[in-house]
Formats: sequence, structure tokens, C-alpha cells
Amino acid sequence: MQTLPEREAEDEVIDVLHAVGRITAEEIRAPHALPTFSRSSMDGYAVRALDTYGASESMPGFLSLTGEIPMGIEAAFVLLPGQAAPIHTGGMLPRNADAVVTLELTEKSREGEIAILRSVASGENVILIGEDVMEGQVVIPRGIEVRPVEVGGCMALGVTTIRVSKRPRIGIISNGDEIIPPRQVLVPGQVRDINSYSLAALVSEAGGEPVLFGIVPDKLEMMKEIAAKAITECQAVVFTAGSSASARDMTAEVIASLGSPGVIIHGVNTRPGKPTILGVCDGKAVIGLPGNPVSAMVIAKIFVVPLIRRLLGVEVERPNKFCQARLTLNIPSQAGREDWIAVKLIPSTHNKEDESWLAEPIFAKSNLIFSLVYADGLIRIPADVTGLEAGEDVKAFLI
Amino acid sequence: MQTLPEREAEDEVIDVLHAVGRITAEEIRAPHALPTFSRSSMDGYAVRALDTYGASESMPGFLSLTGEIPMGIEAAFVLLPGQAAPIHTGGMLPRNADAVVTLELTEKSREGEIAILRSVASGENVILIGEDVMEGQVVIPRGIEVRPVEVGGCMALGVTTIRVSKRPRIGIISNGDEIIPPRQVLVPGQVRDINSYSLAALVSEAGGEPVLFGIVPDKLEMMKEIAAKAITECQAVVFTAGSSASARDMTAEVIASLGSPGVIIHGVNTRPGKPTILGVCDGKAVIGLPGNPVSAMVIAKIFVVPLIRRLLGVEVERPNKFCQARLTLNIPSQAGREDWIAVKLIPSTHNKEDESWLAEPIFAKSNLIFSLVYADGLIRIPADVTGLEAGEDVKAFLI
Repeated sequence: MQTLPEREAEDEVIDVLHAVGRITAEEIRAPHALPTFSRSSMDGYAVRALDTYGASESMPGFLSLTGEIPMGIEAAFVLLPGQAAPIHTGGMLPRNADAVVTLELTEKSREGEIAILRSVASGENVILIGEDVMEGQVVIPRGIEVRPVEVGGCMALGVTTIRVSKRPRIGIISNGDEIIPPRQVLVPGQVRDINSYSLAALVSEAGGEPVLFGIVPDKLEMMKEIAAKAITECQAVVFTAGSSASARDMTAEVIASLGSPGVIIHGVNTRPGKPTILGVCDGKAVIGLPGNPVSAMVIAKIFVVPLIRRLLGVEVERPNKFCQARLTLNIPSQAGREDWIAVKLIPSTHNKEDESWLAEPIFAKSNLIFSLVYADGLIRIPADVTGLEAGEDVKAFLI
Repeated sequence: MQTLPEREAEDEVIDVLHAVGRITAEEIRAPHALPTFSRSSMDGYAVRALDTYGASESMPGFLSLTGEIPMGIEAAFVLLPGQAAPIHTGGMLPRNADAVVTLELTEKSREGEIAILRSVASGENVILIGEDVMEGQVVIPRGIEVRPVEVGGCMALGVTTIRVSKRPRIGIISNGDEIIPPRQVLVPGQVRDINSYSLAALVSEAGGEPVLFGIVPDKLEMMKEIAAKAITECQAVVFTAGSSASARDMTAEVIASLGSPGVIIHGVNTRPGKPTILGVCDGKAVIGLPGNPVSAMVIAKIFVVPLIRRLLGVEVERPNKFCQARLTLNIPSQAGREDWIAVKLIPSTHNKEDESWLAEPIFAKSNLIFSLVYADGLIRIPADVTGLEAGEDVKAFLI
């Protein structure tokens, strides 16, 4: 799809609390250092490290106690030489203190005094100003998916709104004289529309906004009219046409009418998915999916999901989610064609922590939607490989 | 948590189109067989297999052509012996036809006739009634997460609503005199509430509904009051307390006041996460998270997420999402303690399809929220292992 232009950024500013799964549209820089003050990382005594030098169990150092350091406010006093101030984890070090002696390394002494059983170095048990992030540092890059930890990071910095990519609108056009809406009563010869809905769910999951244009009858002029409306209103259009050769030909003709250059690839070298059509119409991607529901889902994973991620401006994709598993059966495959095989993943041990899995291929005709419902993942056999053997380690991409 | 009672089912019926990520609360049985009629899986000619026996390229069989079979309706005719009917992929076989000869295996013959170049067996290139699913068959079990493919499967059967588990309400109580809401202006000694929000995002991601009870000051009676309200309104309560020993002690005391048996485990043998508190109060789970944000997230992954899945009634958990990677550095670990190490995942090749990754440990104090923001996953070092070596294959659980 080299003919696709660079994405024109469409952004919106939203509350960080609702940003999980969205893509950052600008880098986020720390408005200030974090922590904003030197904090104790242990329960103990704030000290000047210098005052503890030479202290040991056999020869303790003695420091005089000040008042306890309160949580959440700055201590009202400055630590004087020879003094120790009781401090909690997360407490702010008083001025002149530069280390914390943990409770375990102290002993009670006379009233108003504490015995130090080991020396501490400057900075020990302390989180210094800026140790987490420095002021101005890029903490979250542009073009990356927000997870719960990024929400926490933003909150730590007081960043409560965030600029994210708008969800790209993906038009979905279903077509075929035999296809009816799922709620309609079925008569012999008809099948319910599956692809519009499984595709819509997949589009949402990938970060897009599905826009359903319904089921269009097999009439070229009606198809062209609806398709023209879809491409005007959406950032990309996906056709899920009937499975017959004539329906595919009509999809290709409709795509050709939508803009330039039109159809770029008609037929891809994968199984399932051979009748896939890829096109670009005046800078917008148009994809014609194969009619059968399993091929449609596999091809949507291969082409529609990456398209949505591109439209979202994803620059750093997080690692793909897959499951390593051991194949249970040989899978033959024709050289020169990429095969995608649905597999059921079965725990190979009863040790839940070990997490090892067996991948059992589901050999079913690619027209059977429930072969995918029973599956957990898809494994890919590259075009230059003639098959996989039982016992091989494979990667199952979770569906 | 053996003291947790079996979950009492709380269900709701929703539109299948909004069910992705939800957990089925009842098994779904096919209301009818699928396909509902015998369909062609190829473009070609519907025939009686018997009529093609013995046909070969050198000795073609000749059949007389009927009218084309329309898409989406039953053919008006019955196939007579010696006849062939043009049919599209997905078309309904006429009565008496039991196989399809593909276009490629036919040749034009005289007007009104077709030459068959190979015999076909009964059922060849046909999807029979019930071949995908049989009437009454369980197609989706109870207690499993709905994915886009299940949406497609339901649509295929005309199942447009689905009974799913209600999202369990998880109360989140923050506490600590030094903690302030993220929007409030910070003064020295204060830190913003991170854990309530990263935890809320994680709860949503796991399928729960977070209910925030705000930041409660370090006053025992106030804590007890808010906690009692939370446990009444929610199915479970999570405390994210201040990090000091006194704050943890107060959390334990509050949990003890909420119901019987109260605190069950105070302190777990993992790093990070040692100060974790697990309790059950009159049949509801209560979890006290460690105060520091990294420990809180790790412990929430280990304890809060599985709790939510249990409350949701998940019976068949889909495979965990993890990424296999090669460790870049040695990681020492103390025997007798389970360690969780944050790692950055780096593609190890430029071949995107190969998907092999390096896991680079992020050695940072567990107090630094941004160490998790920079991380892609967590790797687990079991208690009986004293460390991992560079070059070892590890599983990174994605965060």
C-alpha cells in the first residue's frame, strides 16, 4: 500500500482515565521532576550520612532524636549535626538529611537518643528528586497504545488529559443476494450476515470505529452508490461480498469506480484468503474480503487490523500477543503459498504456573465459522515451508 | 481463598454486538443446524454424482444444462438424471443434486450441454446441512470470554442477544495523609494518587467495574466507615494504602473490622509485593495492596485480576497473553522467594514476520512508576530458582 498517503492526524483530547487502548497523538513530557522531593523508601530515621560513619554493632553511633516527620508536609525543622528524625516510607527528608537508617539497624538507647548499628551512605534508602523522571523528559512517546501503567504514570505527574488519535471510521459494506440481516427470518437458500458483525467487533478491538452500511443487493449501481457514500464518510472501506466469482468481480468493479488508482492487488497467495482484493481510491484504502467467514476473519487480521493501526498513527507497536505451543499433528502445506491454520490450545501440564500448551490443528473447511469459534489461535506456515511436523514449537496468534 | 464462597451468578442479557470481552453466563446451543441447506462451496455445476461416474479427460461425460441456480432462494426445479445446473459458491443445491463439479473440470460442449472431465463423489464441493453445527449442539460454553469470532458465530445462528455475567463492582479505597487527588496542586511532602487510577484501569481491563471511594485520611474510624460502605456496595474491596508500616497496620485493622474471618494472609513471599494483605470478610474478598505503585500493579496482576475472573464466573480461561523472548542479562534472585522482573521487549531481528524478541531487564527501584511505563512485560522467577541466565528463553507476561 505504498500509494497510501501519510496519515493526516486527527486527534482529540480526552480524560486520561478513559485512555486505555487509545493511541497517543503527541509525546508527553514530564511537567516537573518526580519525585518532587527526596523521599524515604523505608521506615526508619532520617540522618546526615556523615554522622553515621564508623557505626557498627560492636560500636554503635548515638544520635539525638528530633520530633517525628509527618506524612504529606515538609518538616518544620532543619536536621542539625548529631540528630536523627523518625521517618515513614514516603516521608519527605528534612533539610540537611541525606540518608535513612532502617528501623532494623537501630536500637533504643537512652530517652531522646537512638543507637545506630551500621553506617549509611549518602542517598541510602532515599529516592532523590528526579530519580523516577527528570523535568522535561519524554515519558510517553507519540504513537503508542496507552495501558493501565501509563494512566498511573500520567496521574503521578498530574497529567489528567491526553491527546489521542481519533478512532478511524471504517466503513463496512456487505453484499450478496443470499445474505440477510441476522434478525430476519431465514428461508431456504439464504444465510445470515456474519462478516459485517465479526468484522465490526474486530475493528473496535483494533481501535477503529466500525460504520455498517448494511447489506446491498447484487446490483452494480446500488453498490457504487453506497460505496461512494461510505468512502466519503469513512477513512477506509471494507467490502464483505458474496462468495461467488460474480460477486467478487462486482466488488472489483465498484472499487475501480471509487477513485484512483483503484484495485492494486486482486488475489493474494494465502490460504485461506485467496480472493482478497486490495485497493486505494484517492488516498483511501479499500479492502475486499473473501466471502466465507473464516477467510474473512483471517484476512481481516492480516490486512484490516494493520491498516487501522496505521490510520491511528501507531509508531511503536507493542509485542504481538501470541502463545508458544507444541504442535500435536503434522500439517502439510503447499510450498509457495502462506497458510494460516486454526488451532485449539490445550494445557500440556496440570501445573498452571508452567503455562505450556499443545496446539491441536483444527482441520475444517474454511467456510465453517464454528471452526474459528472452537479455535484459540492461528498459526502461520510461511510460503517457503512445505509443512510443519508434530512436536515442533509454533507460535499461535491469539484470535 | 478457600474461604471464598462460590460465586452467586449475577447476569444480564445484552446485545451480542456489545459482548466482546464479556463472559458468557450460560451455554449457547444451536437453535438449528448450520448450514440450514446443502450449499455449494465452489463455482461450477450441481450434479448427481452418479451421473459423473467414469468421466475423464479422455472420455468426458455429457450432461444437459438446466437454468442457473439463483442465489438466496431455492431452485424452482428438481435435478433430473443426466442434468447439470450452473451454481455459484454459496448457492443452494437443487433437489436430487448431491455434488458440484468445479468450472475448471468442465468444458463447453454443444448448446445446452456441458462436458464433465472428472467424476465427483457424492458430497464433493458441497457443505451439507449441519456440517458446521448440528441443531442443539453447544456452540459456546458457559464461563468463557466472547471474542469477535463468537459474535460471528452467534449471528450465523440468528442469536442476537446473550446472557453474560455482570461486571463485578470492585471498590478501591486509597489512603495516606501524603496522598492527594491528581488534579490538586502539590505542596512539598505530598504525592499524587497513582494507584487508584492504574488499578481502576486494570480492573476495567480484567472485566470488572471499578468504584473509587477516594482518598481517606489516616484516621481509623473514617477508614472503617468508608470500608464498610465499600464492602456493602461492591463484590470485593481493594485498599491501596500509604506505604508506611503504620498505614499497613491500619489497613489490617480495618479489614479485621469488616467481617469474618478477616485477614488471612499478611505478607507474601514475592518481590515486589511483600506487604500484601489478603482477607475475606463475610464471603467477600478484600485485598490490601503494597503502597508503592510498581508493587501495587504487580500484586494486582497476581491477585486482583484472578479474583475478578472468578467473580465473573470464568470457567475456561483463554491462554495467557505472553511473549516468548531471550533474556539479555543475568538476573540474580534469592531462593525461596518469587521474583517478578519488569522487562523491555526489543525485536531481535528486522524480519517483522519472524517475531523474535529480546527481553532486557529493567533494574529499577520498585517505587518508580515509570520503570513500568518503560516496560512491556513481567517475567517470573519461581521461588525454587536462584536466578536466570543471559540467553535463556523466558516468557514475558504483557502488561
